[in-house]
Amino acid sequence: MTEDAKVTPWEVTGILGDTDYSKIADRFGAKIIDRAMKERIASYTGDLHPFLRYDVFFAHRDLDLILDAYSRGEGFYLYTGRGPSGKMHLGHLLPFMFTRWLQEKFNVDLIIQITDDEKFLFRDLNSGDLNRYTSDNILDILSLGFNPERTHIMVDTLNSGLLYNNAIKVARHINVSLAKSVFGFDDSDNVGKYFFTSIQAVPSFILSEILGRPIRCLIPYAIDQDPHFKVARDVMPKIGYEKPSSIISKFIPSLKGSGKMSSSDTTTGIYLDDDRKTVRKKLMKYAFSGGRDTADEQRKYGANPDIDFSFNVFRLLENDPSVVSRIYDEYRSGQLLSGEMKAMTADRISNLLEGLSINREKVKNNISDYMFSTDRFR
Amino acid sequence: MTEDAKVTPWEVTGILGDTDYSKIADRFGAKIIDRAMKERIASYTGDLHPFLRYDVFFAHRDLDLILDAYSRGEGFYLYTGRGPSGKMHLGHLLPFMFTRWLQEKFNVDLIIQITDDEKFLFRDLNSGDLNRYTSDNILDILSLGFNPERTHIMVDTLNSGLLYNNAIKVARHINVSLAKSVFGFDDSDNVGKYFFTSIQAVPSFILSEILGRPIRCLIPYAIDQDPHFKVARDVMPKIGYEKPSSIISKFIPSLKGSGKMSSSDTTTGIYLDDDRKTVRKKLMKYAFSGGRDTADEQRKYGANPDIDFSFNVFRLLENDPSVVSRIYDEYRSGQLLSGEMKAMTADRISNLLEGLSINREKVKNNISDYMFSTDRFR
Repeated sequence: MTEDAKVTPWEVTGILGDTDYSKIADRFGAKIIDRAMKERIASYTGDLHPFLRYDVFFAHRDLDLILDAYSRGEGFYLYTGRGPSGKMHLGHLLPFMFTRWLQEKFNVDLIIQITDDEKFLFRDLNSGDLNRYTSDNILDILSLGFNPERTHIMVDTLNSGLLYNNAIKVARHINVSLAKSVFGFDDSDNVGKYFFTSIQAVPSFILSEILGRPIRCLIPYAIDQDPHFKVARDVMPKIGYEKPSSIISKFIPSLKGSGKMSSSDTTTGIYLDDDRKTVRKKLMKYAFSGGRDTADEQRKYGANPDIDFSFNVFRLLENDPSVVSRIYDEYRSGQLLSGEMKAMTADRISNLLEGLSINREKVKNNISDYMFSTDRFR
Repeated sequence: MTEDAKVTPWEVTGILGDTDYSKIADRFGAKIIDRAMKERIASYTGDLHPFLRYDVFFAHRDLDLILDAYSRGEGFYLYTGRGPSGKMHLGHLLPFMFTRWLQEKFNVDLIIQITDDEKFLFRDLNSGDLNRYTSDNILDILSLGFNPERTHIMVDTLNSGLLYNNAIKVARHINVSLAKSVFGFDDSDNVGKYFFTSIQAVPSFILSEILGRPIRCLIPYAIDQDPHFKVARDVMPKIGYEKPSSIISKFIPSLKGSGKMSSSDTTTGIYLDDDRKTVRKKLMKYAFSGGRDTADEQRKYGANPDIDFSFNVFRLLENDPSVVSRIYDEYRSGQLLSGEMKAMTADRISNLLEGLSINREKVKNNISDYMFSTDRFR
């Protein structure tokens, strides 16, 4: 990536398939999740999620403090979120799979913030659309099977009282100059955008506020959200809270292998309601391939799996690393053809989506069980 | 006043005793309340409040539209507010007396916004102090005897859900550039300050929002709050509401006759809990006098009542204009001495304050009757 590549929550450029993420981590002041850290995590979780094994979640801030607290029996909680600006696609969903895994392995509370106010302030969406995306996205997320006892969906406009009253504590320590330098805003941006990061900071300390005692927060998020939480980490000690820790993922690339999977371009992303035929067609037609142009060449020279969209998604959906190694070798050597790789991944994706679709129907009537309420912590 | 005199809600300079308010009205794009308008008001109210008679409320925007709506039987509502940053003094209270009069004469709903969030964002106050000032100020305001059926105290942090969800509609139309030019902010100001004007705009349309039909809003306020409502008027049509109308007052000057009566300088203001002796002492010692240096000179040359603090307050507390004229003439001619003028006004003030103090005790147990709730409009 170039030095001046932009990585803000709303404008993402320069983060391509061959990005050197260690440089990004450095630039962002985060630490790479190295072998030692992976081993430490595995010592608590028993196994490693593919997202850790294959470095999708590649960096962290103060993850060690979370694990310290956990090992002392103090516990912690998870906080992640979703801006409901459209239908969810695979790229949106995968990080939630990882968060679900963290919740299960550590048996902790999880706050999922749905930032409908953000999308209102940043996009030209009306409240009807926002409400529809909000309900729809919540169902998609819950279809992954979060623990209903410990999962707390916080829709911003439904919790705006609690959020605003706590956000002003944060806002007092963020000036316009800082917001400009961190988010790339200018004077033509609306004042709601400037204020919003304070709202997004609240869940990172709200449990300490509600419980009346400090409890650490771990935030899994994609790198584009980093500016928000970097600001939050700077402000927290000034208002009497611990800095939240973070575990940071790369983007799930678009089918084309570069850029983020997009909500607006139907040819670059796989939607959760795409049927088996559509998924297969999209992969066949659009998925960036590391294979050769012809079957003959592929058999002769083999593929480059590292830059292949299908292989990269396949390994995230396969828990057994020996299977992944075998497929890697077969594809690398040319035994496996590009179309076969695509078909295999398409099947994996469709199996996942069909399972989620069934769960979605089941969870439909129980959404209220998952909704955030301060009473649930008392 | 000089052309570049600042009149923002937080920084007030240039508004001295001899200010040419018609120039200010012009500059602010407001209209002077002229004789015809006063007569029209009196045609509904029967009499004129001293604040109108003596041009304390001296300007307006679209007051005629309010009176049109009223005469068509459509009704309107009042909205005013208070930032709870300290004990209230006489200068704070007098505009509420006028608002109470408007409520009584037109028998309309009144929303009183208590902007504790504003004071949190703009001052270095902790929430303990803010809560104390909030309760205390509410009691002071209610001691004036508002109609409990139609008065709605909206404490921002107690209604922040409703406020934030509506404020983001406003915020989307206010950019940093506008906030800077209107409020004199710069990049070192915190993002909460920038956002706050959106919160203050909400009560000017919230009743239309709650009732689901347009109802006009009239906002009585002192000139220093004008930037907030000028912005609100610009934004309202963009989000589907009528522009609020306003009726605008001069500042009640400090005892010294210049500048605003201040909360922080105990020698320039009269607090609501000042006893009779203290009020008299403050007036005797500090009240700016239009009289002469000695009793002899005063008898010989007479006073200038127009610049005399005591006379100016006296006439606001006297409903009978013939009494005011008589006192004016006596003071002007030298019959009345400066000390006598001060003593008379001190008595009037103390009579008022003692009455309020009794009401304050009575209203103490009924505060909840006055608190804002959307249910009260349904």
